Amino acid sequence: MSRLGAAVHVITTDGPAGRTGFTATAVCSVSDTPSTLLVCLNRGSGSSPILRTNGVFCVNTLRAGDEIVADTFAGRTKVSREARFDTGQWKKLATGAPALMSAVVAFDCHISEVKAVASHDIIFGVVQAVHSGPAGEALVYHDRLYKKL
Amino acid sequence: MSRLGAAVHVITTDGPAGRTGFTATAVCSVSDTPSTLLVCLNRGSGSSPILRTNGVFCVNTLRAGDEIVADTFAGRTKVSREARFDTGQWKKLATGAPALMSAVVAFDCHISEVKAVASHDIIFGVVQAVHSGPAGEALVYHDRLYKKL
Repeated sequence: MSRLGAAVHVITTDGPAGRTGFTATAVCSVSDTPSTLLVCLNRGSGSSPILRTNGVFCVNTLRAGDEIVADTFAGRTKVSREARFDTGQWKKLATGAPALMSAVVAFDCHISEVKAVASHDIIFGVVQAVHSGPAGEALVYHDRLYKKL
Repeated sequence: MSRLGAAVHVITTDGPAGRTGFTATAVCSVSDTPSTLLVCLNRGSGSSPILRTNGVFCVNTLRAGDEIVADTFAGRTKVSREARFDTGQWKKLATGAPALMSAVVAFDCHISEVKAVASHDIIFGVVQAVHSGPAGEALVYHDRLYKKL
């Protein structure tokens, strides 16, 4: 699947179950009315129950230059979960999930549904607010390398 | 959603309902065991019932240089549905859905499930066969332009 090039996103959440975030490429737009997208997440990951309990998430599409944010939220920098948010500038939009101000675009979502498929949860979100960062190239992951688009 | 850069795919099918294909970016890998991916498709499109009846589809991830294939299957060249397959070299893998020999990668799938979400069908496929074309850059669609990766 590594040859299937994809934009790099950091998915964040905050709420009763706490704040967390992780790097993901398995994100897909679903529908325009209402604006809906989905995120695929391994059910065994620590983040999945946190997202489901909070009921909200924000998809932050990273720009070229934010590789450090991608690495931090992928756990490659060994920074603790909470300290990950010291990297980058974050603000809340509508749901309380952290939005990255430098993102190409951030989609702040309420979870509308969760569907289990094999080892993964497909988490559907309806967009409540959008933040567009400054213009610039998007960060893309392809053949296990970061590239810019 | 146009700022959410994405690889460009041609989704094909063949079977009792006939052969067809269309260009899509809303494709996402879901799980490794079994290898599962999903395609989001407007329920009102002519292709959706054909895929569902045939029960199979092939995701062909386009390479840079195959913009003409992307345009043809997006209907931009006004070629009839059946004549679209005159562009590119196609072969059958396991399911009978046409696989593009020049694709970066082609995932030949059986449909395992279809889920309706708002205006769209989420079509889940379990990979039956994979074809990897010659090495090269992938085609990506971003800000309504084709780019290479």
